[in-house]
Amino acid sequence: MVRYKAVIAYDGTHFNGFQKQPNGRTVQQEVEKTLQKMNNGEPVTIFGSGRTDAGVHALGQVIHFDYPQERPLERMRFALDTQTPEDIAVSSVEIAADDFHARYHVVEKTYHFKVQIEKPRSPFRRFYASYFPYPLDLNLIRQALPDLLGTHDFTSFCATGGAIEDKVRTIYQADLVVNEAGTELTFIFRGNGFLYKMIRILVGTLLKIGNGRIPADSIPEILAAKDRNLAGPTAHPEGLYLAEVKYK
Amino acid sequence: MVRYKAVIAYDGTHFNGFQKQPNGRTVQQEVEKTLQKMNNGEPVTIFGSGRTDAGVHALGQVIHFDYPQERPLERMRFALDTQTPEDIAVSSVEIAADDFHARYHVVEKTYHFKVQIEKPRSPFRRFYASYFPYPLDLNLIRQALPDLLGTHDFTSFCATGGAIEDKVRTIYQADLVVNEAGTELTFIFRGNGFLYKMIRILVGTLLKIGNGRIPADSIPEILAAKDRNLAGPTAHPEGLYLAEVKYK
Repeated sequence: MVRYKAVIAYDGTHFNGFQKQPNGRTVQQEVEKTLQKMNNGEPVTIFGSGRTDAGVHALGQVIHFDYPQERPLERMRFALDTQTPEDIAVSSVEIAADDFHARYHVVEKTYHFKVQIEKPRSPFRRFYASYFPYPLDLNLIRQALPDLLGTHDFTSFCATGGAIEDKVRTIYQADLVVNEAGTELTFIFRGNGFLYKMIRILVGTLLKIGNGRIPADSIPEILAAKDRNLAGPTAHPEGLYLAEVKYK
Repeated sequence: MVRYKAVIAYDGTHFNGFQKQPNGRTVQQEVEKTLQKMNNGEPVTIFGSGRTDAGVHALGQVIHFDYPQERPLERMRFALDTQTPEDIAVSSVEIAADDFHARYHVVEKTYHFKVQIEKPRSPFRRFYASYFPYPLDLNLIRQALPDLLGTHDFTSFCATGGAIEDKVRTIYQADLVVNEAGTELTFIFRGNGFLYKMIRILVGTLLKIGNGRIPADSIPEILAAKDRNLAGPTAHPEGLYLAEVKYK
């Protein structure tokens, strides 16, 4: 067996998330179906760096899987890329160490979150950016962003009901970029890991700050309270992109 | 009756083109359905600046229609924008002269054609750009573009079987723009009118020129021959956008 690491991109619109499940089409099922065909009908299991929810996109999701033969890498990549459906692209394939694990060995993840702010809503962005048509003072958001940097308990920014006990995470980067036309925001978050729906709750909170409905200096207070009710709403999944995953 | 002029954008992916027809969902049908609801169930007919084929998009299609009452324009625009399906946006509504005609009074149209050239094909562009993964010398294309400018008989760049006799059109602008990342080309064509599938055949021909399979200086010869067989293939509809329509 040879362990392969692959970087894949997908348009999450028509997937019921990354992870295999009884109902609905998922990224894992489609990639595994393709690998099974390539492997003469023998099943191959893939492991992702983490799940993504329905409607969430990936520019650089990382997976690993074991495959019986060592094959030329570009041929492997091309076969996977062209035989998976059109909403999945395979950007690179390499051979990994036998003990490499796409989920357990993650040291850093980057997410992007796109928010369309023009009126009327562009029909071309409806699956690829969240929409916020209300007044926004970007300076208020820029004032709040640095308070997210560093190591914090992010309980207030985590959807309730998850099984993970330790809610301490470190954020290295929290930036806001506006496109040239002024029609779309991109939030960039880079950290050692993110809790369930954390990015979407962060963005929901930051948009409320920009809209003047949560004070710009309240992030430290919200973090300290460890109370999901103090943060803003969960932003819609279509704006979220898993952009990059880094390993040791 | 008041005559209104409106500018609309649409994502052509899930439409069987602009024009009403017995089979499939069309832009005209969806807009007319909305206007009929707004007009207490009385039907309203819209007239577009021209048809667009299945899969073709619009950034600035222009329509006109007659409506019994004069209503506040922003309210009219907002009602139309929010009540039409999400893949149609209504950018502006204004009152037009009683004899204004969205089709017959056109003096200039601008089309964009987008071609994705990166590998692998981005899953996010599959409905919004044509794909050309073969070698391309953009300088060859740039050499050929000026030969399209001016007034010519474009029979060689027109799909056969159309009813229009006069195939003389004037092109004012024929440009090629590359995005910053170098992953996507945009062709821009502005002229007094375009024949059926003309932009797609022009792009198919220009890509063959860039690929070295048609000489860069052969446009005058292809025009002079008035023979569709000398031009390149018809590029796919998903790259085409009706960008702007101008009137006297």
